[in-house]
Amino acid sequence: MNGNALDALRRRLPDLRLKTEPADLEFYGRDWTRRWTPAPLAIALPGSVEEVQGIMRWASEFGVAIVPSGGRTGLSGGAVAAHGELVVSTERLNKVLSFDRIDRSLTVEAGITLEAAQNAAREQGLIYPVDFAARGSCAIGGTIATNAGGIRVLRYGNTRNWIAGLKLVTPQGELLDLNRGLIKNSSGYDLRQLVIGAEGTLGIVVEATLQLTDPAPRSNVMLLALPSFEVLMDVFAVLRSALSLSAFEFFTDIALKHVLAHGAQAPFAETYPYYVVSEFDCADDAQEAAVLAAFEQLAEQGQVLDGVISSSDAQAAALWRLREGITESLAQYTPYKNDVAVRISAMPAFLAEAQSLLGEAYPDFEVVWFGHIGDGNLHINVLKPGDMAQADFVAACEQVTKLLAKVLQEHGGSISAEHGIGLVKKPYLDCTRSLAEIELMRQIRRAVDPAGLMNPGKVFD
Amino acid sequence: MNGNALDALRRRLPDLRLKTEPADLEFYGRDWTRRWTPAPLAIALPGSVEEVQGIMRWASEFGVAIVPSGGRTGLSGGAVAAHGELVVSTERLNKVLSFDRIDRSLTVEAGITLEAAQNAAREQGLIYPVDFAARGSCAIGGTIATNAGGIRVLRYGNTRNWIAGLKLVTPQGELLDLNRGLIKNSSGYDLRQLVIGAEGTLGIVVEATLQLTDPAPRSNVMLLALPSFEVLMDVFAVLRSALSLSAFEFFTDIALKHVLAHGAQAPFAETYPYYVVSEFDCADDAQEAAVLAAFEQLAEQGQVLDGVISSSDAQAAALWRLREGITESLAQYTPYKNDVAVRISAMPAFLAEAQSLLGEAYPDFEVVWFGHIGDGNLHINVLKPGDMAQADFVAACEQVTKLLAKVLQEHGGSISAEHGIGLVKKPYLDCTRSLAEIELMRQIRRAVDPAGLMNPGKVFD
Repeated sequence: MNGNALDALRRRLPDLRLKTEPADLEFYGRDWTRRWTPAPLAIALPGSVEEVQGIMRWASEFGVAIVPSGGRTGLSGGAVAAHGELVVSTERLNKVLSFDRIDRSLTVEAGITLEAAQNAAREQGLIYPVDFAARGSCAIGGTIATNAGGIRVLRYGNTRNWIAGLKLVTPQGELLDLNRGLIKNSSGYDLRQLVIGAEGTLGIVVEATLQLTDPAPRSNVMLLALPSFEVLMDVFAVLRSALSLSAFEFFTDIALKHVLAHGAQAPFAETYPYYVVSEFDCADDAQEAAVLAAFEQLAEQGQVLDGVISSSDAQAAALWRLREGITESLAQYTPYKNDVAVRISAMPAFLAEAQSLLGEAYPDFEVVWFGHIGDGNLHINVLKPGDMAQADFVAACEQVTKLLAKVLQEHGGSISAEHGIGLVKKPYLDCTRSLAEIELMRQIRRAVDPAGLMNPGKVFD
Repeated sequence: MNGNALDALRRRLPDLRLKTEPADLEFYGRDWTRRWTPAPLAIALPGSVEEVQGIMRWASEFGVAIVPSGGRTGLSGGAVAAHGELVVSTERLNKVLSFDRIDRSLTVEAGITLEAAQNAAREQGLIYPVDFAARGSCAIGGTIATNAGGIRVLRYGNTRNWIAGLKLVTPQGELLDLNRGLIKNSSGYDLRQLVIGAEGTLGIVVEATLQLTDPAPRSNVMLLALPSFEVLMDVFAVLRSALSLSAFEFFTDIALKHVLAHGAQAPFAETYPYYVVSEFDCADDAQEAAVLAAFEQLAEQGQVLDGVISSSDAQAAALWRLREGITESLAQYTPYKNDVAVRISAMPAFLAEAQSLLGEAYPDFEVVWFGHIGDGNLHINVLKPGDMAQADFVAACEQVTKLLAKVLQEHGGSISAEHGIGLVKKPYLDCTRSLAEIELMRQIRRAVDPAGLMNPGKVFD
């Protein structure tokens, strides 16, 4: 039947670019997760909003499920197509449509990469402040689908704060122009905000108006070595009060070991349990003095075991590389990833309990911790032993994630800080959202998509 | 039947405080709009979340409509109860529940006034930055229901950006604890954001966790007199680039006339067509120098006809009073209010068209313009001639609002920037939201509240 459906799609939209080669189905049918075997019906690469609308009307009529697809850099399986779905890739919808200097906004198609959007903003003397390591590959539409966070959330907040408007093609093929770049608009439900973070279950985002802002003041970077997580939290409190922070990122000695093995340069002669990379404004003499004073205070009190403040852009980049290079340095171990969040105040208690749980549960696995302290966001990567089968490894990890989700629940945390739920975290959603919340989400999804064709099986059933 | 229902409520919640005196029905049955005759069934003043849940279960069983009620300072009729509804006032739920220094958050009950919440933040050396003139009377729950904006949106954004979590009692009496103060939480639909701005149609907000922030740097205020709206926009562009602005508010000569008649002191010897009150950081020598340089540049180019920079806190307050006193100075004329928004870039074209429309439509009425340039938000107050009947005046104004809504639609604007839709703006919603959007909102409302008991008749039918 789906073969017939595809013929009908070809007849209806003769100019629509379609791919059906096995290599394409494989390539477009998965994201950065590697657990599911791609099996989409076909790949559509629409070149216009009208084609997306046509696809949705066709899907509605023929009952074909749709998987929206951006850069497929997701880590939760949100863009996986393993059950005969039509993948709708936005990769050809990748243009900057307009810039407005008075509104300070950039309107882009959903398939543009984050980096291209950032560059277009910078060319105008402004910035789009959402930023994270996959910037060169991920699509803006994907960052909207997951309400992407990243390394500058401490100062700028998540993607949600920077989307002044978006265009959504609904499951019925209607085009909704949501919020249209307005700063104030109290006229009924903010459907834009409902769509942000919905992981493609309510329609396909085809266009977004990004709010831009002034470039950050000149900044500097410091790396600190610390004896314990408790001290790390104290240092965070001190620096947040004394300086204007834009990032406060931590990682452990094990994380550093992998980054160094992957080619980075050792920052200190000795090794320590915890490290922090912090970025802060350093635009004038007063701010420079405040930085030195805070640094000296910490050193004198013995809280900081070692530390360095960058003295050049190159050194700042080298310090950042120690943090940003972690994910890449772990890739060879096909890590099992948890991306959890708690309130900042709950981090020490949660971390202690989680480290103890994981130490007992994974005596034979190496566990790498890093994350964004200022956002209460911890990334936990469990490394697969070389001689273990991938499926056995994942099965073992899933058992522990069940326990971890319970610990999170006790601390009021979230099983997904910024990666989304997709397929990977779906079994644990009820530890983060109550059953009443999940039922309400289900009713809303049904109201928007009665036929259940938008990214089915993702987030919740 | 509703008498029986009320008896049942009394039996079921014997400790629930209920008011049924005519004076109370009148007082609690309306907001600051004066168009509808209050006729609620009764007023409930729950003293706990459990009582709110009990009320909702009872309402569900007996089919009684509910009107959530905060400070009733709304200007769109969102809190009007004119059809036998039970008004649920949060006025007894007015406590600060907790403060967390590490999370920088304040958890409050929904009935607390904005000002009391601001004060509680300030006692901790932090601020809750949402602010507007009704601060002393409005309830936090009401600011969430309308996604309140106000005078600091230019720097801080709307209420939506500052609600780290909220507790909602659903129409079925379930208690949802939405987002729980997390900074990052990508775990399904952000129901918190859906509830913000929903004007009490999806449940009753009983508690909120407010995100706090550092106090603003020392600031200063300037008042500028300007020849035209085009120049005013140029001045905005200059000052936004040169200074760190926290407010950029405008009003016309007619607005100033009313404020002066109401007791304020004339700032200049002469009068001018347009005035701007702008607030900006002025924390160090560099910023002070930038202010003077910008001011001199504008004066030399002849853009600014007259101007003053405050030299004391008292003078700053006096300048602010010229802007903040407008609403009060107009109250005696029972003004018909429009609160519209367009993109900042669309303001000059919209203003010209709207002024021309209103000049033709209201040759005999005085029209007062003021608003928040940095947010694209214009307040248009039409004053009732003393000898005209209120109903005739409103009917005449409504005719013009229809035309104004069309002009707004052409410019991509919103019929409600920050007051909400309620009853007052409902007839014009379809000029701001498409029919497909309204239908989608209707489906979501039905999914959340199938019996249609939450604030029925408000926002859309």
